[in-house]
Amino acid sequence: MRAKVKAFLSQPVRVIPLGFLAAILAGTGLLMLPVSQAGPGATRLTDAAFTATSAVSVTGLATVDTPVHWSTFGQVVILACIQIGGLGLMTSAVLLGLLVSRRFGLRTTLMARAEHSVALDLGDVRSVLLRTLAFTAAGELVIAAILTARFGSYGYGAHSLWLGVFHSVSAFNNAGFALFSDSIMGFATDPWISLPLAAGTILGGLGMPVVFELTRRGRRRRRWSVHTKMTLTGSAILLVGGTVAFLAFEWTNPATLGQWPWHDRFLPAFFQSAVARTSGFNSIDVGAMNEDSLLATIILMFIGGGSASTAGGIKVTTFFVLLWVIWAELRGERDVNAFRRRIGPAVIREALTVALVFIACNAFGVFLMQHFERDTELTAVMFEVTSAFATVGQSTGITFDLSDPSKWLLAIAMYTGRVGPVLFAASLALRTRRRLYRYPETRPLVG
Amino acid sequence: MRAKVKAFLSQPVRVIPLGFLAAILAGTGLLMLPVSQAGPGATRLTDAAFTATSAVSVTGLATVDTPVHWSTFGQVVILACIQIGGLGLMTSAVLLGLLVSRRFGLRTTLMARAEHSVALDLGDVRSVLLRTLAFTAAGELVIAAILTARFGSYGYGAHSLWLGVFHSVSAFNNAGFALFSDSIMGFATDPWISLPLAAGTILGGLGMPVVFELTRRGRRRRRWSVHTKMTLTGSAILLVGGTVAFLAFEWTNPATLGQWPWHDRFLPAFFQSAVARTSGFNSIDVGAMNEDSLLATIILMFIGGGSASTAGGIKVTTFFVLLWVIWAELRGERDVNAFRRRIGPAVIREALTVALVFIACNAFGVFLMQHFERDTELTAVMFEVTSAFATVGQSTGITFDLSDPSKWLLAIAMYTGRVGPVLFAASLALRTRRRLYRYPETRPLVG
Ligand SMILES: [K+]
Ligand SMILES: [K+]
Repeated sequence: MRAKVKAFLSQPVRVIPLGFLAAILAGTGLLMLPVSQAGPGATRLTDAAFTATSAVSVTGLATVDTPVHWSTFGQVVILACIQIGGLGLMTSAVLLGLLVSRRFGLRTTLMARAEHSVALDLGDVRSVLLRTLAFTAAGELVIAAILTARFGSYGYGAHSLWLGVFHSVSAFNNAGFALFSDSIMGFATDPWISLPLAAGTILGGLGMPVVFELTRRGRRRRRWSVHTKMTLTGSAILLVGGTVAFLAFEWTNPATLGQWPWHDRFLPAFFQSAVARTSGFNSIDVGAMNEDSLLATIILMFIGGGSASTAGGIKVTTFFVLLWVIWAELRGERDVNAFRRRIGPAVIREALTVALVFIACNAFGVFLMQHFERDTELTAVMFEVTSAFATVGQSTGITFDLSDPSKWLLAIAMYTGRVGPVLFAASLALRTRRRLYRYPETRPLVG
Repeated sequence: MRAKVKAFLSQPVRVIPLGFLAAILAGTGLLMLPVSQAGPGATRLTDAAFTATSAVSVTGLATVDTPVHWSTFGQVVILACIQIGGLGLMTSAVLLGLLVSRRFGLRTTLMARAEHSVALDLGDVRSVLLRTLAFTAAGELVIAAILTARFGSYGYGAHSLWLGVFHSVSAFNNAGFALFSDSIMGFATDPWISLPLAAGTILGGLGMPVVFELTRRGRRRRRWSVHTKMTLTGSAILLVGGTVAFLAFEWTNPATLGQWPWHDRFLPAFFQSAVARTSGFNSIDVGAMNEDSLLATIILMFIGGGSASTAGGIKVTTFFVLLWVIWAELRGERDVNAFRRRIGPAVIREALTVALVFIACNAFGVFLMQHFERDTELTAVMFEVTSAFATVGQSTGITFDLSDPSKWLLAIAMYTGRVGPVLFAASLALRTRRRLYRYPETRPLVG
């Protein structure tokens, strides 16, 4: 196993994209079988490939109506793709993160020593993998149990179990595929459905480094790394800020929040805030939201979730590092300090690169897609491309009617949006650099 | 004078915005006089303030038809505003630039010495101001002479002189106000009008630091500073790239390039590329350009011209510094090197701040304006806001019909887009920092 791990870590630049590609190809093949489709006939290559890519990249965009188009077998294939994609992502990210943090640890705590060659401890790797699996299994089980019980109370009978398991896995892996044609809009004001899904989304979107640190030294907050502090603080700010924004923008919209009495509007606004950065679920009609909410959602999608999680986007830490840089720069401060640590120039460059490459790729995607969708408004195209590239999965509802070139474009966006950041992290992890040190430096994971 | 200069440099954060504001207020007052209007009555506050702001900030956006609405007196007021705005900008930028380069010079060439207190040499200041005036006067005279002669050949008679002077000043200060209702679309294929205007725009948009260096040591290219090399190379790349893009996107558009025989299409494409980053002139119908060209123009507007010039945007050097950072980061290089010099982390932070603050402010402007202009397409709103904030002045043609809130919003965008970067440069210039040095560091002006 040690040899395998070392081999993986020496070549993640090949293994990761090929692994995802293999899973997508297998999923596409299975989804094209007639048995995967609910009605007669078989699914077209484009839609099968789109669905498999969306599932493996845990995005959640769909060109066909998941509960209507696919048979139970097809849905099982989708669920397997989601779980493989999510676990594959978490474990590679965790191993890479371990490598990064080890290197970083060497640098900061053993500064006096000579450079060590990096070698992963087999025990560490096994422990990390087991804990990732345990965390996933535990989280999915709890959420599935709550959801199953609640779906049962709606009278879904034996089907409740499948509904519970599917949506739990879909939420925990931040995918957002749903087995209802209107996503979970039918349960918008039901906290027993909305809150477990939101909790799964948020937990899955924190990222394993944060989860490990929380489970390891949860009570000693002083010892948390800057990465964990930044992710938790940032996520909290974004959750609250998003909720307030959606409340403000949609309060009187009769097609969204305005349809409910005032006290029922908070839960759907919070849910939209929780899922907008990472998950394809929606409990209010995204296509009926006004332009303000769409732009706010685009910004949240762009920011995304925690590093080394199943979420996409530029990541919470990247976003806040950039904010901190701007703040320090406008105040004329020499160093960028966060949580009593200096953020070094290398991290700033990484954050900058992640954000600008994301913006540039996304803009290029929008530029291409508005060629293919001449009759669609620019906002909807921007929303759809950002949703795919940030592997979020929300849509204003245009996905079903897209032309084939647009579907392939979005599939490529989902794949590169998923694989790109991991590769970037891998190349950072494996980079050998020497540094001159002035102060103890912090190195939050970015991208 | 020395006392005045020192007083200015110690308080540019107050003097610059107040100076621009005073010029705008004076211009607004004069433009509201009945004598400024061609027809009977007087101009409304909103339109007068918009025009004065557009002129002083050398933007070029207009809510009324310049040649039709304003009397000759009104046009003289506009021209005076442009010239005051342009000169005010160049001289403050030059003084600040001098300060920065002095400090920088101290750091790099006299590293062994102790920190000096910064004191501007009176002779230097006088020489800089005189050379700026001389450069402006010479440039404007030559271009005015060519334009006057050419307009004369079109049979404008004595009016040719006014046309020549007005458009020369407007071009050299990168304003882009025109005395024809269709800007210079009537002369799109006439190189004797297009090329002098493009030349004035390009020269005025290089920035005084580059101009000084070119006139001082033009032939010894090796001695050029990295700032100059980067500005010149970058501008050339953008000019060629823009031309190619507009040729490709508009070649067959019967409303733009497609209306001329193939050999007449290159000049208007080049002209649009030259003006898109900084000037409000247009020789092809911007509103008839397709979405691709509009997005390309938005990107060019965002990039803008040279630092310490009359151009706006994030500036050519800022853009290329960011590109270099991304390139170095993707290649895994330790340092960001350009033209055999290392770009230090402080510059990178500045570039990052400039670009992201620009993007954020611009997005906020678009967000607000689409509230005021519900029926206007998002592309047109984005185009208009970017044009104002980057003080470019191009428009898809919606400016005349904007609601008053939108006009005030754009006026604020023009003012802050103009004053903000200078203030940022001022705060950088006056910042006192100590550094640790590893290698000789280059410090191109950004923002
Ligand atoms: K997702
Ligand atoms: K301009």
